[in-house]
Amino acid sequence: MSGMALGPGPEFDRIRHILGRLGPHAEGAGGDCAILPDGPGKVVVSVDLSMEGVHFRRDWLTMEEIGWRAAAAALSDLAAEGAATVGVLASVGVPRGSPEEDLLALMAGVGNAAAEAGGVVLGGDLSASPQWLVDVAVIGRAERPITRAGARPGDGVWVTGQLGGSRAALVTWRRGSTPEPEARRAFAHPVPRIEAGRALAAAGARAMIDVSDGLGGDAGHLAAASGVAVEIDLARIPVAPAAVAAAKEVGIPAVHFAALGGEDYELLVALPDTFSTTQARQFSGSTGLELTRIGEVRSGDRARFTLDGRAIALEGYDHFA
Amino acid sequence: MSGMALGPGPEFDRIRHILGRLGPHAEGAGGDCAILPDGPGKVVVSVDLSMEGVHFRRDWLTMEEIGWRAAAAALSDLAAEGAATVGVLASVGVPRGSPEEDLLALMAGVGNAAAEAGGVVLGGDLSASPQWLVDVAVIGRAERPITRAGARPGDGVWVTGQLGGSRAALVTWRRGSTPEPEARRAFAHPVPRIEAGRALAAAGARAMIDVSDGLGGDAGHLAAASGVAVEIDLARIPVAPAAVAAAKEVGIPAVHFAALGGEDYELLVALPDTFSTTQARQFSGSTGLELTRIGEVRSGDRARFTLDGRAIALEGYDHFA
Repeated sequence: MSGMALGPGPEFDRIRHILGRLGPHAEGAGGDCAILPDGPGKVVVSVDLSMEGVHFRRDWLTMEEIGWRAAAAALSDLAAEGAATVGVLASVGVPRGSPEEDLLALMAGVGNAAAEAGGVVLGGDLSASPQWLVDVAVIGRAERPITRAGARPGDGVWVTGQLGGSRAALVTWRRGSTPEPEARRAFAHPVPRIEAGRALAAAGARAMIDVSDGLGGDAGHLAAASGVAVEIDLARIPVAPAAVAAAKEVGIPAVHFAALGGEDYELLVALPDTFSTTQARQFSGSTGLELTRIGEVRSGDRARFTLDGRAIALEGYDHFA
Repeated sequence: MSGMALGPGPEFDRIRHILGRLGPHAEGAGGDCAILPDGPGKVVVSVDLSMEGVHFRRDWLTMEEIGWRAAAAALSDLAAEGAATVGVLASVGVPRGSPEEDLLALMAGVGNAAAEAGGVVLGGDLSASPQWLVDVAVIGRAERPITRAGARPGDGVWVTGQLGGSRAALVTWRRGSTPEPEARRAFAHPVPRIEAGRALAAAGARAMIDVSDGLGGDAGHLAAASGVAVEIDLARIPVAPAAVAAAKEVGIPAVHFAALGGEDYELLVALPDTFSTTQARQFSGSTGLELTRIGEVRSGDRARFTLDGRAIALEGYDHFA
């Protein structure tokens, strides 16, 4: 059953249509609560709110992409915990008079992202709203949840994938141009690093965070939570090719551009110094993702960035600004 | 610890202020995910989205009441499952330029409702937004979750508390008047029936739902999910005194008014026919709530309402309309 039977009413017709579209990607939705299947490990939960005009614009993304991206942003928090996905709940604000198909496409995107991450849509809520919004609650399980708080002096600091692609799309749209496909994909269709997070947890990750606010901000959170200094050499940052081009257009160094870029949803992880480049290659072989050592954990506080031996001040990406 | 240490930035200052205000009502918030404490039973989850202009107006409620009511509406889904509260996550949309105190008061309301229900604030998210909104995800545990689907022909249909008080406030505000304190409290400060739900589960509840859409709608959901007819005698409905007065003003029978009133957050429950009035009195003694038998479960389908032997058509309260 994908969804419990509901009584009559237009709001419930809408829910029935959504459950029909989600098919096997929905499970147990439609009751007062979803009941999680039993499983091993700790239950971990997070939420992420995506607002039209703040986190996305409708002329940039399809409805499916709006739903996918909102769910992926929330699922990324499970990845950073080294957790497996159980499912998601999505609350959606729908402008009055919207075509039913827009809502169905958005929820299909949420369902696709949940399925990609190994989970299902467990429930949700709908409301009229002046603009589109999607708030996604995610539920996962982790045998050993990896927090931001376990980094120790001497650990290596690593990052998955490449940075700056999502910001390249954003900057290009804001200049009135059309992003190249790679940049657009990074912004519109980020892939939650669930398998990568689990592999890093299994490899002994001490502390982990997803790069949602930009390396400048997120390395600072990891440093603050662990009570350490996180030193990152900007020259070692894996820069997305699209970010190199976009950085040139706006006239700032590509590594700065990439380090300030939010919403890449890659993982920043502290691993014991013994974690080797051979292990990194094995990680890449199994996940298809680069894993790059970009710095070290030291005694002290704050995230510290250097380039060619000089200290560089970086600030995070503040959605609220 | 109420909240993990965060790096620098204005968005994170805001989160630090919230965690400071919540004090012991927050637990584990501030990381990528909250990690639930281990416990017995099944984990159950739900979400409820409250939008300014749809579910509340700022000239009707204080910010604390907006937060309380949003959390109580979500916690009511746990009550209907017979679950104990673990905690809540709150995503809040904040109009640009809002006084910091408004957000802190709203989150204090969320925290107070969570604490009243026996839980804590586990996390959340913030975004700029054209209007205030609060989406609350709730997490609970239940040894035997009570769904809407277990009602059997022959069961008695019961309801906790009194109905129509919340609608009395709404109708009075919409007429430009000020609701009396009892009606205002029903709308602004509903109490999630967590203990009542657990007591009813322990007493053998077969199916349960909270009265959020109005008895007309919610009895229909219970009937549809259970594959039965739910027959309710409107004359037996416990009507809130404030609803009697408000119904007179709008010129409809008080029992219709109460049966159509949404957002009372009382519990509608199917109990075995053997559940006695003595047991109902014991329930009232321990919870302080009336428990009234208002009908029977029969073979068939749909919710069916009668008054003085005549069939009455009732429709639910549709937030979306």
